[in-house]
Amino acid sequence: MVLELHTDCITVDSPGRGTIDVTAQLQHVVAESGVRNGLAQVFLRHTSASLVISENADPDVRRDLDAFLARLVPDGDGLYQHVAEGPDDMPAHVRAALTQTSVGVPVRDGRCAFGTWQALYLWEHRLAAHRRQLDVTVVGRR
Amino acid sequence: MVLELHTDCITVDSPGRGTIDVTAQLQHVVAESGVRNGLAQVFLRHTSASLVISENADPDVRRDLDAFLARLVPDGDGLYQHVAEGPDDMPAHVRAALTQTSVGVPVRDGRCAFGTWQALYLWEHRLAAHRRQLDVTVVGRR
Amino acid sequence: MVLELHTDCITVDSPGRGTIDVTAQLQHVVAESGVRNGLAQVFLRHTSASLVISENADPDVRRDLDAFLARLVPDGDGLYQHVAEGPDDMPAHVRAALTQTSVGVPVRDGRCAFGTWQALYLWEHRLAAHRRQLDVTVVGRR
Repeated sequence: MVLELHTDCITVDSPGRGTIDVTAQLQHVVAESGVRNGLAQVFLRHTSASLVISENADPDVRRDLDAFLARLVPDGDGLYQHVAEGPDDMPAHVRAALTQTSVGVPVRDGRCAFGTWQALYLWEHRLAAHRRQLDVTVVGRR
Repeated sequence: MVLELHTDCITVDSPGRGTIDVTAQLQHVVAESGVRNGLAQVFLRHTSASLVISENADPDVRRDLDAFLARLVPDGDGLYQHVAEGPDDMPAHVRAALTQTSVGVPVRDGRCAFGTWQALYLWEHRLAAHRRQLDVTVVGRR
Repeated sequence: MVLELHTDCITVDSPGRGTIDVTAQLQHVVAESGVRNGLAQVFLRHTSASLVISENADPDVRRDLDAFLARLVPDGDGLYQHVAEGPDDMPAHVRAALTQTSVGVPVRDGRCAFGTWQALYLWEHRLAAHRRQLDVTVVGRR
């Protein structure tokens, strides 16, 4: 058995706080890699956004996830000393720490083997628009 | 050096909310793979359950973990709009987002190299029984 | 293409609760591996400490992360039954469950491809000093 390695980047322009479905872009990278079975590791190169795998059917799920975090980690919280970059900056770091920066996804039959109701989202935690970069590493066999 | 790839599935029947030790099933998959040193990636194909590595000695630890999440993410919270699937459904998605869907575990000497007090648990967040599927990808050398 | 596998350990002596930058030690392991492109998986063999990728510029960010968790998961919380190991023990397990035990980092051009503002921290959750062990698995091509 000979294993292959494929690396790629995905750039996402977020319009501000909220979730963006990046599943199709990830599936494209996996298809381009030629890997049929293995692993795709997705890594976000930022500390005020994160990754989450969640339900892909009802958009209210992502609205409710964000509402939960907005209540748990309120902007402008007087607890913080790191406030120079705005009232949503330290909350963004906390929200990122409570979710994921790196996610490994199985590749089966040339596709990411998400469950029926799963999708991968980039979760922008800053209020303003940001350009975000994902590094993807695919390891496996053709 | 020639690396090997082995893929497998683990099916777990949860009796409802709480943690289920899946370490032995994972160790079995790793043993079957023949891989002596490398990496085992475990991926849960659901968004209302999750994975957690925690202490394997005192069962009160898992009871307390669940008690903490039940207080932090209460069922029937009026915050949510996604309520059609019951009062424990959106809380289950939140609990999953705050924990793990994908975990990478080192393989050393043919076994998952958990620390002495570590085990891998599937954490069922729905109140009702569910059948859950884990995809396992093992990469490494014999 | 021939892929390489390299395994190593990193030992960290924590002085007690707080974050410790382990990025340089991880970069050293990756450099020693000879892998130029691939993946480094970092795994912490403990359940009362964890891993977090966060901002490496302003130390107030880590102070604020710890302040947030200290408020969200207070020591001595009456909720817990697992109290024999002290008032900070069960909170340490909860804090670990809400953050990461295992993190995959892309390797590019012989280095971990962290973003400009990212570093990897071991997050000690116990109040007392502890010796902690990280297992690192590097897979990729030279």
